[in-house]
Amino acid sequence: MSAGAQRPIEGEAQALAERLVATLRDRDGFSAWMGLELVALSPASCTVRTTVRREMLNGFGVCHGGITYSIADSALAFASNTHGRVTLSVENGISYVAPVVLGDVLTATAEEESAGGRIAFYRVVVRKQDDSMVAIFRGTVYRTQRELLSGNTRHE
Amino acid sequence: MSAGAQRPIEGEAQALAERLVATLRDRDGFSAWMGLELVALSPASCTVRTTVRREMLNGFGVCHGGITYSIADSALAFASNTHGRVTLSVENGISYVAPVVLGDVLTATAEEESAGGRIAFYRVVVRKQDDSMVAIFRGTVYRTQRELLSGNTRHE
Amino acid sequence: MSAGAQRPIEGEAQALAERLVATLRDRDGFSAWMGLELVALSPASCTVRTTVRREMLNGFGVCHGGITYSIADSALAFASNTHGRVTLSVENGISYVAPVVLGDVLTATAEEESAGGRIAFYRVVVRKQDDSMVAIFRGTVYRTQRELLSGNTRHE
Amino acid sequence: MSAGAQRPIEGEAQALAERLVATLRDRDGFSAWMGLELVALSPASCTVRTTVRREMLNGFGVCHGGITYSIADSALAFASNTHGRVTLSVENGISYVAPVVLGDVLTATAEEESAGGRIAFYRVVVRKQDDSMVAIFRGTVYRTQRELLSGNTRHE
Repeated sequence: MSAGAQRPIEGEAQALAERLVATLRDRDGFSAWMGLELVALSPASCTVRTTVRREMLNGFGVCHGGITYSIADSALAFASNTHGRVTLSVENGISYVAPVVLGDVLTATAEEESAGGRIAFYRVVVRKQDDSMVAIFRGTVYRTQRELLSGNTRHE
Repeated sequence: MSAGAQRPIEGEAQALAERLVATLRDRDGFSAWMGLELVALSPASCTVRTTVRREMLNGFGVCHGGITYSIADSALAFASNTHGRVTLSVENGISYVAPVVLGDVLTATAEEESAGGRIAFYRVVVRKQDDSMVAIFRGTVYRTQRELLSGNTRHE
Repeated sequence: MSAGAQRPIEGEAQALAERLVATLRDRDGFSAWMGLELVALSPASCTVRTTVRREMLNGFGVCHGGITYSIADSALAFASNTHGRVTLSVENGISYVAPVVLGDVLTATAEEESAGGRIAFYRVVVRKQDDSMVAIFRGTVYRTQRELLSGNTRHE
Repeated sequence: MSAGAQRPIEGEAQALAERLVATLRDRDGFSAWMGLELVALSPASCTVRTTVRREMLNGFGVCHGGITYSIADSALAFASNTHGRVTLSVENGISYVAPVVLGDVLTATAEEESAGGRIAFYRVVVRKQDDSMVAIFRGTVYRTQRELLSGNTRHE
């Protein structure tokens, strides 16, 4: 069997994931403002990266907690929408492990921990350039019946 | 006793809260980017407001969950730093109750629910222009020994 | 119109809530072990109460955090199942505000903060006999299509 | 160098962890009621196990969510108190991944994810006998200045 014929289903799932996330990223103004690069993507998993700029700082001169959260939340949105149905955050939480300063390069990796028919749980870890952890994020998402690409809605 | 002489301690606490939050807001680049206005402030409580702009939207064309979170997190930072010592988020959570769209005016009100010597718990409710709730946020903060204004550090 | 004829829909909702929670409580071995009394019940709201016994203490000689959580979780289960469809916890959180000791009487009040078609958010506050708050609990629940009383299942 | 002489510091830390947790378990009435066995223990990590009994069920005839939480919370308490200073839960959360039924054997493993001077973050995973995950628990703890064994208090 040739390499090209191997695992067609996984290949299709990967191609779908890439198409869906490309569509989401095209429209995502806030992720664009944050300068999020897509580092890695596969079904139910995503890694994004950005560099902390001056307008991302808070009143203490360190990275605003909302920025760290938002990077993780974008990674979650991309990872959890790789299956084709519109998937939305229900409830998220974040633990702040270490401060982040101007110029730090933050990388957020979202991974599915468990998924049922409608509800799935994700874990997102945010690290900086020395690979040390700066935040731990949990996402609980709800998978709707709406198709992300076609806009069609199955009977819910 | 004249009215003007009443409750000097509360007056001082209010003046301190205003001075501290003015200092924080002056330096807070991300809150400035979000266009946060200060609507109300008192010791351990704060209300901020902003309008959702195009660059705050996500890949679904609605307000990025990180923006809603960040508005609440700024309200928390201002409310929890009204006492004078540098206070930092340890762990926050947010429940997304209703979608937010372009042009919505979001108001976040942070209130202290309970405070011990080092740890305090806050609740932040985010509402839109029709006063309906769009998100419920919980903040757990840690009060350090550092003075916010002087930069002096007591022995910790 | 006579007083007895007023608000028949609310009267039916109340009667249904009482029937559903009576059924749940009859079968709930752990709530029985905890000695939970039903103090108040209405659609989407419930208050329960119990007294901390020796076998509820932890290794520090204070009430085990799991007991405080469980009282709140039972209040949540009763409140969120007053509508007739089987409703389950997806994700809960608890903030420990003050210690609880042997003999304390704990009262937990669960109230719906927001409800959509499938997901609802509850807040449960746990207080002790002097009415001071000892814990704040958040519950995120998922409403299934299964009827609680008949056991019939609608097409999901 | 003989094996017995190797790594005396780790050996002492392990011995301290065992002594501390033995003390806690001796006094912990609720963990005893739950039938918690200690499966593994090392500094900042602990695994406990028990079997779901009839009095642990809820009104739906499945394991009460408070039991699953409590097993995880005990694992957290043991793991986070291996260092010698009294350590208390500030804020915990749990995601319910799969139902648990009568007779299931639950194993909870608590591991420190990150620790600062006063605040540490733990992750506890609860699995059943087939090793599938039934719940994911997060614990945020506060390390006091009180010694667990002597009862002495350093100046805080």
